[in-house]
Amino acid sequence: MDASQPSGAEASAKVIDGKLVAQQIREEIAAEVSRMKDAIGAVPGLAVILVGDRKDSATYVRNKKKACEAAGINSFEVRLQEDSAEAEVLKHIAAFNDDPAVHGILVQLPLPKHMNEENVLNAVSIEKDVDGFHPLNIGRLAMRGRDPLFVPCTPKGCIELLRRSGVQISGKRAVVIGRSNIVGMPAALLLQREDATVTIVHSRTKNPEEIVKQADIVVSAVGQSNMVRGSWLKPGAVVIDVGINAVEHVQKDASCSRGYKLVGDVCYEEASKVASAVTPVPGGVGPMTIAMLLSNTLASAKRIHNFQ
Amino acid sequence: MDASQPSGAEASAKVIDGKLVAQQIREEIAAEVSRMKDAIGAVPGLAVILVGDRKDSATYVRNKKKACEAAGINSFEVRLQEDSAEAEVLKHIAAFNDDPAVHGILVQLPLPKHMNEENVLNAVSIEKDVDGFHPLNIGRLAMRGRDPLFVPCTPKGCIELLRRSGVQISGKRAVVIGRSNIVGMPAALLLQREDATVTIVHSRTKNPEEIVKQADIVVSAVGQSNMVRGSWLKPGAVVIDVGINAVEHVQKDASCSRGYKLVGDVCYEEASKVASAVTPVPGGVGPMTIAMLLSNTLASAKRIHNFQ
Repeated sequence: MDASQPSGAEASAKVIDGKLVAQQIREEIAAEVSRMKDAIGAVPGLAVILVGDRKDSATYVRNKKKACEAAGINSFEVRLQEDSAEAEVLKHIAAFNDDPAVHGILVQLPLPKHMNEENVLNAVSIEKDVDGFHPLNIGRLAMRGRDPLFVPCTPKGCIELLRRSGVQISGKRAVVIGRSNIVGMPAALLLQREDATVTIVHSRTKNPEEIVKQADIVVSAVGQSNMVRGSWLKPGAVVIDVGINAVEHVQKDASCSRGYKLVGDVCYEEASKVASAVTPVPGGVGPMTIAMLLSNTLASAKRIHNFQ
Repeated sequence: MDASQPSGAEASAKVIDGKLVAQQIREEIAAEVSRMKDAIGAVPGLAVILVGDRKDSATYVRNKKKACEAAGINSFEVRLQEDSAEAEVLKHIAAFNDDPAVHGILVQLPLPKHMNEENVLNAVSIEKDVDGFHPLNIGRLAMRGRDPLFVPCTPKGCIELLRRSGVQISGKRAVVIGRSNIVGMPAALLLQREDATVTIVHSRTKNPEEIVKQADIVVSAVGQSNMVRGSWLKPGAVVIDVGINAVEHVQKDASCSRGYKLVGDVCYEEASKVASAVTPVPGGVGPMTIAMLLSNTLASAKRIHNFQ
């Protein structure tokens, strides 16, 4: 389509339906869990540690638990008070590290401020680090010829969405916006492993729009609503929007019963008119994260039980 | 200078004299080693393990030993036969790991083919991994808010050359050509840590010259002689040439007594007319690598002895 006339043109970008893809993956995982159980009698297990009363964290944990149940994965949960000692968290991690029924351990972030996140995350056994945040996993992700035991769930979900949408990555220009440890940086490393030519754009980048405009694949993980405009995009680009930003608005409509709605980093309306494919928010990358967590837990159980 | 008339223009790029900078750094290190010895009686020690008879490896090891001596750093050396068992190498690594007089351990690469490089390198204690190749170090290098114990010597040397040449990195566009574990990838991570906007160009990149042309800072680590032409460079760019390529040539001249000469990845003559600064080969990045190895060994000894 002609990007010089975006205002007059109809939306033409394919919508990458993350909810649908995630559902397919969860069904595939459920089938594998069932096959494993039938063959060797072992069931994957995921342990989640939640500290404090953050509502968003509680929601995430509840969703993870439901998703585990639906896939036939055992879930274990520890909930600790906001003012718990770091040692208490470490004790539970140590117990899960030793528990043969647990194949994945997830510490829900953010932790209360009095805890040292690095200490806590480093305590998780590398064999059960289904979040993939351990620096040893990140190092292996960055290195050629090495393989991480686990890839962080959200960036892994981005790549899986590209793959299942038939998007070629090798040889393409990819721009990742944002360089966080949990999304931007590992997404860039993953795209690089897939032989894309990758640039990371961040808060210190001058003229980010010029760089983004060169990208065949854009992954945005900034957390700033509608930052990426249609004019930033190369016509035909594929856009993966990781941002989930709650914006208040006054107009009452169906999507707005709670006085705010969720939007991505990318101005969806504009992007739809320029890109060849784009993920919506919500319903794009979001559902993939939990699917990848289940996938990592299954892979861990298979590895530990040497089941293929 | 006017890049549109490179053929008529005289070379104007500043020559970044790596030999001189490395010498300054080695003198600074010698002074620190002396201060440490006077204060606490401890002397940094570097252990090198060399397996096999490769002439180039033997030369590197000899140069490292000489540089240690000149800086007042103790050096320890183990030479093993080409056909030694991997277990033999691991035994020596274990002994050096336990030896309090050794603060850095370097296994000279490449190892003979019958050895598993990953196994051998992983055996080096993370506290003595002065090469910085351990995936845990690489992971920490990639992660914001984490610090590697050691940064790989050659990419660290590149950044140090930029710093000591007064080149601003933050906010600049940087392109790294090559994505090797020992130079390209960690150089990109380092530039990113310094707030550059970084792109890695590699063998699967289409139109690398277009991307390189956008860079304020170019780091080339490919190992292909004269690959980067003057026409690839943005006028005023700073060029760090890590490549050291032996090319045969028939003309007899002073630099050519052995029938070949060393050249970089960058066509130096052409780059001199377009860039604002460029490293020569030899005498650019090369001498920095050993200086950074000494720097890492000193830093390790200071950390182990808690000396500041």
